[in-house]
Amino acid sequence: MDMTGIIGNIAALLTTFSFLPQAIKTIKTGDTKNLSLPMYILFVTGVIMWICYGVRNNQLPIIIGNVVTCLFASVILGYKIKDTFIRK
Amino acid sequence: MDMTGIIGNIAALLTTFSFLPQAIKTIKTGDTKNLSLPMYILFVTGVIMWICYGVRNNQLPIIIGNVVTCLFASVILGYKIKDTFIRK
Repeated sequence: MDMTGIIGNIAALLTTFSFLPQAIKTIKTGDTKNLSLPMYILFVTGVIMWICYGVRNNQLPIIIGNVVTCLFASVILGYKIKDTFIRK
Repeated sequence: MDMTGIIGNIAALLTTFSFLPQAIKTIKTGDTKNLSLPMYILFVTGVIMWICYGVRNNQLPIIIGNVVTCLFASVILGYKIKDTFIRK
């Protein structure tokens, strides 16, 4: 793998797994008051489109990174929706 | 611009501007209790590496999207750091 590929993979790992501590914190506390609902709606939609972009461009770091990011961000979005529309 | 370029630009717009409502909410409330510090440290670092990847691969949607994302996410990270280490 060339240097650009390595940078892309590290970037994908960092931005992907950055959502893991947030997901864990949200699951543990169940508190989403300070999280922005529009952020997670826009973000999850955007990440799904990044997956399409990666597939069409055949760029593995973008595909893998965004699939996992999508899973973590969807968990957070799920908690936020539950907190906003069900618990209130 | 071909369809892949359009998808990449829409994806960049969505994931980039998703951080704007979170930044506004954080600035307005000043409350970052539910935000994860490790998330924003990892995320901002990763976004900087995505910028490097985009520059080396000459992909404008990745470069533009991540530069603006970096600005918004850095504001949130700044508030979180202030809230964690200065106010306590």
